[in-house]
Formats: sequence, structure tokens, C-alpha cells
Amino acid sequence: MSDLQFKDLVEPVAIDKKTALRVTVLGGGSFGTAMANTAVRNGCDTMIWIRDEAIAKEINATHVNKRYLPDFKLEDGLRAVSNLEQAVCDRDIILVAIPSHSFRDVLRQIKPFISAQAVISLTKGVEAKTFSFMSDIIREELPEVPYGVLSGPNLAKEIVAGQPAGTVIASDSELVRYAVQQALHSALFRVFGSDDVHGVELGGALKNIYAVAMGMAAAYKVGENTKSMILTRALAEMSRFAVKLGANPLTFLGLSGVGDLFATCNSPLSRNYQVGFALGSGKTLDQATKELGQTAEGINTIVQVNTRAKELDVYMPITQALYEVIFEGAPPLNIAVSLMKNGHRSDVEFVLPHHEV
Amino acid sequence: MSDLQFKDLVEPVAIDKKTALRVTVLGGGSFGTAMANTAVRNGCDTMIWIRDEAIAKEINATHVNKRYLPDFKLEDGLRAVSNLEQAVCDRDIILVAIPSHSFRDVLRQIKPFISAQAVISLTKGVEAKTFSFMSDIIREELPEVPYGVLSGPNLAKEIVAGQPAGTVIASDSELVRYAVQQALHSALFRVFGSDDVHGVELGGALKNIYAVAMGMAAAYKVGENTKSMILTRALAEMSRFAVKLGANPLTFLGLSGVGDLFATCNSPLSRNYQVGFALGSGKTLDQATKELGQTAEGINTIVQVNTRAKELDVYMPITQALYEVIFEGAPPLNIAVSLMKNGHRSDVEFVLPHHEV
Repeated sequence: MSDLQFKDLVEPVAIDKKTALRVTVLGGGSFGTAMANTAVRNGCDTMIWIRDEAIAKEINATHVNKRYLPDFKLEDGLRAVSNLEQAVCDRDIILVAIPSHSFRDVLRQIKPFISAQAVISLTKGVEAKTFSFMSDIIREELPEVPYGVLSGPNLAKEIVAGQPAGTVIASDSELVRYAVQQALHSALFRVFGSDDVHGVELGGALKNIYAVAMGMAAAYKVGENTKSMILTRALAEMSRFAVKLGANPLTFLGLSGVGDLFATCNSPLSRNYQVGFALGSGKTLDQATKELGQTAEGINTIVQVNTRAKELDVYMPITQALYEVIFEGAPPLNIAVSLMKNGHRSDVEFVLPHHEV
Repeated sequence: MSDLQFKDLVEPVAIDKKTALRVTVLGGGSFGTAMANTAVRNGCDTMIWIRDEAIAKEINATHVNKRYLPDFKLEDGLRAVSNLEQAVCDRDIILVAIPSHSFRDVLRQIKPFISAQAVISLTKGVEAKTFSFMSDIIREELPEVPYGVLSGPNLAKEIVAGQPAGTVIASDSELVRYAVQQALHSALFRVFGSDDVHGVELGGALKNIYAVAMGMAAAYKVGENTKSMILTRALAEMSRFAVKLGANPLTFLGLSGVGDLFATCNSPLSRNYQVGFALGSGKTLDQATKELGQTAEGINTIVQVNTRAKELDVYMPITQALYEVIFEGAPPLNIAVSLMKNGHRSDVEFVLPHHEV
């Protein structure tokens, strides 16, 4: 096999030919750092805001994010700052890579510094209690701002290693989509466009549920037929839920839908998959959580989505079955069989409605 | 882990409560045999037609299909016959599991015996030269007959082993869909309905192209991000092609679309995947074919679809790139990079048209 790498074949960006967009990433986690690094490579004037001043200084001195991407040398042009006003004032694009539980709080802090910047969420998830998506939070906290969400199968370590990847920028604004593509698109990181903001962010928010289901199925040593059925039934209930919130079901055919779901369900090392495997092996949630050392994100999503699906009257049998197994002690195998016996009979209800099957 | 199996939890069908549909499977390959066995379990009066009389007799004597499912004991109620008239006359459903190159010929042979039977294709593929799908051949050869196609991620060995699986019956006729569900649906084999015949059969016919691409990518040790991107770009071009033929793009969200593609691309032992891996490792098609001992189906499909896509003016960059690598000696890695650099910028063009990105 050739030792040639993808990145050896890609020409560097000719900086002077690019618009020098001013880009700031808020948050120094692995994905935020990877996107900031991508923007520098694309010729943008790029800052990354990190709350802890000592870490910001360390990144500026060493060009390494020791905690999240310890093995990777960042571009020299990347500046880390810990002052929020400096990070946000007079910039073109603000990429928000802050965990969902602090997302709203950080938006409130930057509000005084926002004039014409576009604000883009890089965060996958749902705000606890309010069941708000990140785009909802942006609209609530910064109602005048042009905004978008970025989501896709984007493991940060693979991106910084130069493995080809793609993502989706979703926004109602053509200008916002274009600016984010200018800032981040390259031959190794393709940025596709969409105008279905809710559809795109729902893919990233809901997929962890099905990683739990896939881990549970793996404990029963199911074959490829069964895995494929879980994947497509997951898509059926995700898109059903999303359509109820006004999204387009076809969005789930793309990178932020089935793409992210495929990557997540194919990652046996993820916490969600592992907690599912433990549950399928007869362990309780407490036992599984103890073994993993922390709660898997998918468990919280199951609780939230199960409640919300009931409120919205959306049929989500896999989510409900997982809830019953995890919180009500139902036996996983019986639940799986009852899933097989009952339920809808249309393959894709947006093609053939259930009542017409 | 529990030793309990899915099949231990499923109650046997109460035969007297079921309509005793008369079902015949034409063809004694592994999938046809699995479907015949499923129909017997579902209480149907079931025959399997096998051209070779000796093999039919052997199956009746031993209840084993020695060539295709040697490790599996078939239901006692399954009758194998080698007389085509006996197999087809006075039956309700004819399931045709004949390879694509003989499919038309067998339909011509059964034509004299067809009165009101429904004819269902179980065959995935495209007829060489004519680029006809199996439903096209049914319409051409048996224009009056009610028909349908069955397609999904359905490895025969997993089905006979009792692993949960799902499939899709596609037909314009509600009665045909209902009859096939009666004949085959069970708690371990779910039969979902669709009325998008071309969309459903295209999934099964085109997926092998992308198994070649996935094998080639594996030779370059790509990560999950890249695999997910290949999967979704494959869906983009499959659905684009299908829509040109009048299918519904949403069909690709289901079992026969992404479900079958996922199973195929996750099967590193398949010939298509292996030929792709060999090509990505710098071997020629001749070398790869010699190593495998036979031609991979995906290679033929690439040739056919590449030609047809040009005629129909459908943009299929992955198929075209594979064609150039395999038949025109283009270097795979450079082709991959040019795929990344160029092309469409909408994630799902049926959500946001390319010219609006």
C-alpha cells in the first residue's frame, strides 16, 4: 500500500487569495480547537477563547492543547485569548463550541459585544429542563443575530490528522452559509450547506440514544441484518420527531443525519455504546455507570426525548423501550421482541403513510 | 450474558388462524430457500422450484439445501419440485429468486401458467445490456400480472438462524403488499411496506458500487468521518439517480436504501469490498479478480451505471471516479482528493437545491 497521505496531495491555501475573515471559536474542547485550526489553515484571522487564562497562555506558548488534543501541533497563527470582549468584538464569525449546559450563559455574556457578527453553534445536544436546541437558545438570547448550526460526523482527532471529512452548515441565511464555507471548507474538510436548521441539529442531538441501542444489541451478538434494522428504525423515529418540530425528513439522508448516526453506531469505544452493552449484558444502570466512571450523554437524552415525545404525541418505540429497560426494569430481550411484533408497517412513512400499508 | 435467544421468546404461528396462502419460490439459492422456509413457518402451503431434479429430490429427502445453506435444517413442510408447471399453476404468490441474467428467461417460461398469481422479485441487480430492473422485466414479460419487489438488508444465513431482520415489499397494489406480509411477516422477520417500486429495487441494485468504494477507502486506513462521508455521498448519488427514474428520495432513508447500504459496507468479507481493498492497495482489476477467483458484482454495476448516468445526465462522481480508477488507470488517491475538492455543495439537494447553497 502507498504511504502517501491525503494531506500530501492537497495544496496549501494561498492566503492572499482568500478573504481574511475574522473568526473566533468560543471554547477550547477538541472540536472547537480543531475548527479554529482549520480556520487558520484557510487563511482566516483566528482566535480561540478559553476561559482559563493559564491554559490560553500555554496554548500560545506551546501551540498544543494539552488536555484535549495533546498529540497535535496547532498552527502558529492561532491565538488563544481569555478575555471575552476581545474575543467577540469586531469579528465576522463567532463559532460557539460550549457544552449545552453552559451555552446559554456564554451567549448572555457575549451579548453586549455583538453587533453584526454571525453566531454559529458547534454544540450537539439539548439543554436540560428546557429541551431547547442550541439554535433556539441563540434565537432567544440574541434575537437579532444572523445564525447557523454546524453538525456532522466530525471526530476532532481525525480532522486534525488530515483524514477527509464533511460537515453541514445549516442556516436560513445564504450569507451565513457562504461565510462559514469560506472560513472552514477545504479539500480535506468539506462544508455542505442546508437551510434546515432544526433537522441538522436534531441529528446530532438524538443520535446518542441509538448508540445505546446498538451497544445493547451487540451484547446479544446480533448480525448485520439486525443492526441495519435498528439503524433504519432509528432514522424513522428521529425523522418523525424532527418533522413534528418543522424539519424536513430528507435532511436525515445527509451527513448530519445518517452520517453522524453511522459514525456513532460504529464506535464501540463510545460511552453510549458501552453503557448499552453493559445493560444488554444484564447490568443495571448504576452498575454500568460505575464501570464507566461517568454518565453517558445518551442516557440523559433518552429521558428528555421520551418525555418530549409523549408531550408531542410522536411514536418513538426504540426510545420508549430503552427508557423502560433502563428505568423501569423491563427485560431487554422481551422488549426487543415486542418491538419486532408491534408497530408501524410502512418502511418510510413519508413515502407511504402507515394507514395505507 | 443471557443465553436466551430471540427465537426462544417467539411463539409459533397458530397455523389454523392463518390464511393458508399457496406460495412458490423459484430458485434454490440461499435467499430463496430462506424465504421459502419463512413462508412454511408462517403457515403457508409452500413449494420451492429447483431446476435440477436430483437436488430437489435431495432437499425433499434430507431437508437440507446442501449447496447454499448446508448447516441448516429446513422445515419439514417445505416441498421442492423441479417441474415448473406444477410449481406455478394454482398458486397465490410466486417469489422469483433467479439471478438477473436468467430472470427474464424464467418469466417467459412461466408465462403460460400464470393466471391470477402475484409475481414478486427477490432478485437484486440489473439485467446486463438492457439495464432493466427486475420490475421492468416483470412488466415487459407479464404485463397483466400484479407484481412487487422485495428488498432489504437480508443475509440469508442470519435469517434462518433466527436473528431479527426486516425487509421491504414494494408494490403499487395494496393487495400484493398485504399478501406478501401475510406470507412472510413474523416477529423475527418484519416486512415493511412501500409503494415506491423503483426506489426500493434501486437500493439493492446500486449498493454494490459503494461496497467497492468502501473497500478502497479501507486500504487507505480512513477513519469514521471519511466512511460516513462516503456513505452519505453514496446516498446522494443513488437517490439522485433514482429520482431521475421517478423514485422518491425518501425511500433511501429506509431498509432497502441506507439499511442495505449499511449492511453491505459493513461486510469486509464481501467480494465487492475485497476487490475495492485490492484496488486501493495498488493492484489492477485483473490481479484483484484473480485473487478473488471471480468477478465482483459491483464491478459490472459500475460499468452499467456509469454509462446510464451519462445518458440520463445524472451527476454520480463516486461511480465515475471508480470507473476511471478501475478501467482508465487513474490513481485512486488523486481521484479521492479531486472528489473532495469539487462537486456539489448542498448536503441533501432535495432539501436545499445546489444553486441555492
